[in-house]
Amino acid sequence: MEAFGESLHFDRRLGAVDIRASIAHARMLGSRGIIAKKDSNAIIRGLKSIKKEMDDGTFPFDPRLEDIHMNIEARLIDLIGPTGGKLHTGRSRNDQVAVDLRLWLRDEIRRAAEEIKGLINQTVEQARKHAATVMPGYTHLQHAQPVTFGHHLLAYVSMFERDIERFKGCAKRVNIMPLGAGALAGGTLPLDPESVAEELDFDDVFTNSMDAVSDRDFAAEFLFCAALCQIHLSRMAEELILWSSTEFDFVELPEEYTTGSSIMPQKRNPDSAELTRGKTGRMIGNLTAVLTLLKGLPLAYNRDLQEDKEPVFDASDTLRASLRVITGVMKGLKVNKASMRDALKDGFIEATDLAEYLVRKGMPFREAHEVVGELVLAASSKGVALGELDFETYRSASKLFEKDVFDSLDIDKSISRRKTRGGPGTVNKQLRKYVRRKKK
Amino acid sequence: MEAFGESLHFDRRLGAVDIRASIAHARMLGSRGIIAKKDSNAIIRGLKSIKKEMDDGTFPFDPRLEDIHMNIEARLIDLIGPTGGKLHTGRSRNDQVAVDLRLWLRDEIRRAAEEIKGLINQTVEQARKHAATVMPGYTHLQHAQPVTFGHHLLAYVSMFERDIERFKGCAKRVNIMPLGAGALAGGTLPLDPESVAEELDFDDVFTNSMDAVSDRDFAAEFLFCAALCQIHLSRMAEELILWSSTEFDFVELPEEYTTGSSIMPQKRNPDSAELTRGKTGRMIGNLTAVLTLLKGLPLAYNRDLQEDKEPVFDASDTLRASLRVITGVMKGLKVNKASMRDALKDGFIEATDLAEYLVRKGMPFREAHEVVGELVLAASSKGVALGELDFETYRSASKLFEKDVFDSLDIDKSISRRKTRGGPGTVNKQLRKYVRRKKK
Amino acid sequence: MEAFGESLHFDRRLGAVDIRASIAHARMLGSRGIIAKKDSNAIIRGLKSIKKEMDDGTFPFDPRLEDIHMNIEARLIDLIGPTGGKLHTGRSRNDQVAVDLRLWLRDEIRRAAEEIKGLINQTVEQARKHAATVMPGYTHLQHAQPVTFGHHLLAYVSMFERDIERFKGCAKRVNIMPLGAGALAGGTLPLDPESVAEELDFDDVFTNSMDAVSDRDFAAEFLFCAALCQIHLSRMAEELILWSSTEFDFVELPEEYTTGSSIMPQKRNPDSAELTRGKTGRMIGNLTAVLTLLKGLPLAYNRDLQEDKEPVFDASDTLRASLRVITGVMKGLKVNKASMRDALKDGFIEATDLAEYLVRKGMPFREAHEVVGELVLAASSKGVALGELDFETYRSASKLFEKDVFDSLDIDKSISRRKTRGGPGTVNKQLRKYVRRKKK
Amino acid sequence: MEAFGESLHFDRRLGAVDIRASIAHARMLGSRGIIAKKDSNAIIRGLKSIKKEMDDGTFPFDPRLEDIHMNIEARLIDLIGPTGGKLHTGRSRNDQVAVDLRLWLRDEIRRAAEEIKGLINQTVEQARKHAATVMPGYTHLQHAQPVTFGHHLLAYVSMFERDIERFKGCAKRVNIMPLGAGALAGGTLPLDPESVAEELDFDDVFTNSMDAVSDRDFAAEFLFCAALCQIHLSRMAEELILWSSTEFDFVELPEEYTTGSSIMPQKRNPDSAELTRGKTGRMIGNLTAVLTLLKGLPLAYNRDLQEDKEPVFDASDTLRASLRVITGVMKGLKVNKASMRDALKDGFIEATDLAEYLVRKGMPFREAHEVVGELVLAASSKGVALGELDFETYRSASKLFEKDVFDSLDIDKSISRRKTRGGPGTVNKQLRKYVRRKKK
Repeated sequence: MEAFGESLHFDRRLGAVDIRASIAHARMLGSRGIIAKKDSNAIIRGLKSIKKEMDDGTFPFDPRLEDIHMNIEARLIDLIGPTGGKLHTGRSRNDQVAVDLRLWLRDEIRRAAEEIKGLINQTVEQARKHAATVMPGYTHLQHAQPVTFGHHLLAYVSMFERDIERFKGCAKRVNIMPLGAGALAGGTLPLDPESVAEELDFDDVFTNSMDAVSDRDFAAEFLFCAALCQIHLSRMAEELILWSSTEFDFVELPEEYTTGSSIMPQKRNPDSAELTRGKTGRMIGNLTAVLTLLKGLPLAYNRDLQEDKEPVFDASDTLRASLRVITGVMKGLKVNKASMRDALKDGFIEATDLAEYLVRKGMPFREAHEVVGELVLAASSKGVALGELDFETYRSASKLFEKDVFDSLDIDKSISRRKTRGGPGTVNKQLRKYVRRKKK
Repeated sequence: MEAFGESLHFDRRLGAVDIRASIAHARMLGSRGIIAKKDSNAIIRGLKSIKKEMDDGTFPFDPRLEDIHMNIEARLIDLIGPTGGKLHTGRSRNDQVAVDLRLWLRDEIRRAAEEIKGLINQTVEQARKHAATVMPGYTHLQHAQPVTFGHHLLAYVSMFERDIERFKGCAKRVNIMPLGAGALAGGTLPLDPESVAEELDFDDVFTNSMDAVSDRDFAAEFLFCAALCQIHLSRMAEELILWSSTEFDFVELPEEYTTGSSIMPQKRNPDSAELTRGKTGRMIGNLTAVLTLLKGLPLAYNRDLQEDKEPVFDASDTLRASLRVITGVMKGLKVNKASMRDALKDGFIEATDLAEYLVRKGMPFREAHEVVGELVLAASSKGVALGELDFETYRSASKLFEKDVFDSLDIDKSISRRKTRGGPGTVNKQLRKYVRRKKK
Repeated sequence: MEAFGESLHFDRRLGAVDIRASIAHARMLGSRGIIAKKDSNAIIRGLKSIKKEMDDGTFPFDPRLEDIHMNIEARLIDLIGPTGGKLHTGRSRNDQVAVDLRLWLRDEIRRAAEEIKGLINQTVEQARKHAATVMPGYTHLQHAQPVTFGHHLLAYVSMFERDIERFKGCAKRVNIMPLGAGALAGGTLPLDPESVAEELDFDDVFTNSMDAVSDRDFAAEFLFCAALCQIHLSRMAEELILWSSTEFDFVELPEEYTTGSSIMPQKRNPDSAELTRGKTGRMIGNLTAVLTLLKGLPLAYNRDLQEDKEPVFDASDTLRASLRVITGVMKGLKVNKASMRDALKDGFIEATDLAEYLVRKGMPFREAHEVVGELVLAASSKGVALGELDFETYRSASKLFEKDVFDSLDIDKSISRRKTRGGPGTVNKQLRKYVRRKKK
Repeated sequence: MEAFGESLHFDRRLGAVDIRASIAHARMLGSRGIIAKKDSNAIIRGLKSIKKEMDDGTFPFDPRLEDIHMNIEARLIDLIGPTGGKLHTGRSRNDQVAVDLRLWLRDEIRRAAEEIKGLINQTVEQARKHAATVMPGYTHLQHAQPVTFGHHLLAYVSMFERDIERFKGCAKRVNIMPLGAGALAGGTLPLDPESVAEELDFDDVFTNSMDAVSDRDFAAEFLFCAALCQIHLSRMAEELILWSSTEFDFVELPEEYTTGSSIMPQKRNPDSAELTRGKTGRMIGNLTAVLTLLKGLPLAYNRDLQEDKEPVFDASDTLRASLRVITGVMKGLKVNKASMRDALKDGFIEATDLAEYLVRKGMPFREAHEVVGELVLAASSKGVALGELDFETYRSASKLFEKDVFDSLDIDKSISRRKTRGGPGTVNKQLRKYVRRKKK
């Protein structure tokens, strides 16, 4: 049973934040006269020594003391004597563990957001280089319309931008101070949670003490935001895997992000991308775990809630590692422009442009589609590209065709015509926004 | 295969928003001269007739036309002739379906938020009535410290307040206009997405066309927000079920929210609460479904994305129905005050107050705990309450006890002493905030 | 609230099994003398008429009667008078709903298993045709070693075979008769569950009445088996999508399982495969829903359990439809042999064979890998295939090479050498097993 | 990136099985003459030394060597020289890792099954002691009909029996030997997988090499079986928590499975049960993780599959620890018989018996319900129990009532009348089966 309930092997990660929160709590106890100033000072000094021990790796962790909080309290009493026992005045394990997880998560979200920005910057950089690198745009994994590699990459930037926004909203709800809620019903001592919140840089203080100790919404929201961000990485990873196949041959992953084969030295397995894709499973699993955990739990604190920490730690580690890895891949990615352009030759990808040509000349949309369909069939049966059909063929399909039709079949011109908002002809415009921001 | 791909049986719910979006699109096509003004006007008139047919229940839905979009377009051509075919100019099914789902969800989130507010109001109303109704506060489902029923209920109000905030953040990301992204690569026609966005009251227009047609983050985020809100309902439902058991006997659910038994007419099964709790499963399931769906999907549109709608529809229906049901339960809930107060007699729930009494008199926290532990054991072995021990017993436990110790054992006084932020002694203060807002 | 609890819109599917179970129950009541024989007979006749009404589509479903059971009972009383009220003797809604779902699911599992066999047969048929159709075998989506298309397909047959086995185990646990458990505590009437079980072809009768009414393990197990089978389909679907891309160009899906584009008539989107892959999300979601539902539910019956049916119905419908669709795809799949063979030219896929050549000649495995690595680099830098290097190059790499080395580079010979159990050289042997069984 | 791909920190648990499999492989290579007998013998001796080092804790684990397999191979070469390099002949990491996980899981399932049996035995033991301990049977957490505590506990035994069966089916599919499948395409060397399977005690050998290296169905099935078993534990845990509340007061958990409070020494928090319930989240999460991981994965091996191990290890550890803890709780559980019997006084729990009394006397079921309903209302309005109504009241309700009606209201007689299969009157009969089996 002791092993079953023991949490030190994971909650030791909360050591630093536990000490920060305890220092603020001790200072408040002293200021409000709940304990003597000199006791408060002794406690703070003791906690600082413990922090140093942790940083130095000399802190004597003891699993028999079950969790990080008891480890620190016991060490404090070792160091400063019975006065250490006064630290827990007006506080319970329930509000203490809540404040620790919130502090830890707040910092971690900041770091994750920084890493997302790093990935955005590398992706923007590649997009800038390949603003005009044409490639097939796919729907249903079939060639649909020409785009540029830069345009394609900026779709991911849009996703990552939303991730940052979502994490910001989450951080606001994480950054609420629960200390002072006690076991569940506050206390009768003249605590001052507002001053603790100020010292610890919290945005606000809890509203209801029973909610404060049983709320893990912030953990669930973090897990959701992290899972969705990982899903974005998994989509990019899927494409990196496809693109580095022999069949696509669009990109080459930097060597350090692949694994080789002793027997096929030229082979590069995109393990970094596969692992990133695979890790999406655990991210959705972590979210499911915490949501299931919370379902139907009566108020206020229940020991079930101890199960919140491992998924949160794992999700944060996994996301941040995946972000760093994909950033590295993006930075060193070699792009095979020729192969991308060659791929455009198959599949009559200019058909939509041709139809819009006719619409611009006044033909109704559905009719234009039919005319182009016939031309595609004609080209297909002759085994030639649309641009290789002669002008007569076009004229006999519709009198609206004029010589400038061949312009509409030029891929590069096609791209540069797609200038309505968010289209592949606006990559440089899209980029400007990101580059400008980066400079700040 | 036709049946496999058919979506009309669920996407017919998008009929009204599809028409709204099509009207805005047609107007823009006319204004920009992409189609003739009179064609644009004819299309708009036709679409309005179709809307009326839908409202009247006379619209001829045809499952062979696969989805709602084809049904409306085909009907439009029936009504106004081939001109109807021009509506789809500069638009693809991919951006059309995205705009429809966003419009629908935006409205639905607003309604859900209103319903959460309705539940908050009823909960606040009960909390107001029972601001001073004492009851045991539980941790580990064990009596811990006395609280009031009003205080307990306000913990739920805090949860629901966060739900509203979270839905607001989600709504911002839902309310982005994707029309103009075309199949994936925008178009070569001079579309004006900004004016369409304005007519449809969107906050912003998409940034990247490939992202615009393949983004379903907003659906996933909605499903998460809805699942978390349902989890809050499930926690409340769990407590309603517990409280209406014979053993607790704290509340009585309104008759119309229970089912009876022909044989035990006095029996009231809390089916409304059980179903609400049970439906949490499908809410987490819907979220899992869409997250799994998105994992590893390459850009841009893939038919997999058709699977987004049923979970979203189901989650919205389930959440809103659950909210209305629990609001009804809260409104008609009968509270058994006497039973709640009686329950306080078991379990030495005043022990913490007693310890804090000693701390206030200067005893260190850990020592106070020990002293009170002895007193509890003494009372327990005599089979009496703490307040029934005589003063000598207290004095022999610690000289710090004075006659006022018996005050600290009075439950009502205990509650009113718990006046630090968010404690049970601050219910009226907490309430003021909600009541004030409601008046606005 | 009425709408919230109403289940007729989904549980009407249980009509036929509800009647079957009721007939067996009525017969037992008559045989045991619990009700009069003539009453029993009248009830059975009435239930048969109701069955006919359902088959004819004339049964008057009434949502105000909440569920299918009340609808049938009310109709029975309509048809045969108050005697109809005796049907529910010795039975409760709790054991009735359990027996219905078990009967329904038992039949449905049989049908699903038949459909899996149908898919196995079509896959085996394609594998037979393409037992010798060489293609690259992939790991990490990179060319690894040559296999045949038949071999590749038989990997899926192994998965589907396991699905059938798993469903068999599940069916055993589904096919347990719960009728007689009453509301939760059996009854005081001399019921004879064994005879009911015999009439309804159940393998066994429940052991404990409280378990019998609160057990939904069988539903969860079905959902798991179905989800895993759908995952197998999703893997096949993913490959069909890859293989029908322009870049791979290995297969062509039958036209009726694709959707076209009015503008690109040659284009075939693999929607059938995409939907099958996408539907995996809802299958995992349905499983999550029921597992979450069951978590922490006290005994015995709780209304939460009503939430079991929709996921089960949806999973069964989805799986069976997906199986039929993929069977159709497999049946009509066109295989581009030339393209598969061409793909083998890239990537030095014969490297492993070359190394095993050296191992057979006595070189240690790790050393052989190094030698081959050098040869691959040599070929790669010259831009030629391994078979195009001259014999001298081989000899200078290792004296163990003899003229027969070029045999080891022949793809077809390579395949036919891979004759150890389960290898690509054993396709015909693997096939024999399946074909033999099919004949039975 | 190195840290990202490194798996040694978790796959070191596979050390022992990796060595077992390698010994069998080496022996086979020697027997078949693929490597020399003396090499084979040297390798086997080396591997046995490594096993000893691991048992002694002296094995020099090196994270830079990425995984356990490379650690062992490198150490082997350290110990016996370059000959160690021959061990990997005819084997790849892909089939090696599959055989390891299967071996490990096979043993672990056996242990879990033993632990489930241990829990069954303790539960049966308590059921035996409390075969006649009456208590309320609940539906909707409302008193429904009287049962005995023994009967209630045996419902859990039925669940655990199914768990064992399900694990047995799973074990059959785990216990298939994949070694010989190579990287994906078997090999050209004359391997003998059957003899390896025999040495390692596998039931069968893989059928298709591509399936063999990419199949993780067995892991998913294990995770499902484990999650469902944990759900059963969570249901029992929920009841233990309810029953040990002050309000129910039915049971007392053994002290070592609770945590106390320094301030309320009499208080016992049921942490063991809460943690067991809470850990259900991670079990469902682990299952979701692996199912999501497998969705849409093309053949054959992909690095994503490395993500299978952590969920499997965690699920196995969690399940086994939870089983041991709940077994301990069950063993030391104190049952408050008086409190259980007292609870029966509330709620007219004899109503169903009374109705069946009338049915036995010939009254139609629905009419009997009505008559009893009136009597319950009469008793309820007088504030008395059904047995306290006088005989006249009964007679005026129905002439079928005779003096023996008061027998039907006796709880103990009621229980002993419930003798149809699986009812509370058959506890001793149910027990005989389990006790008999245990003796074997």
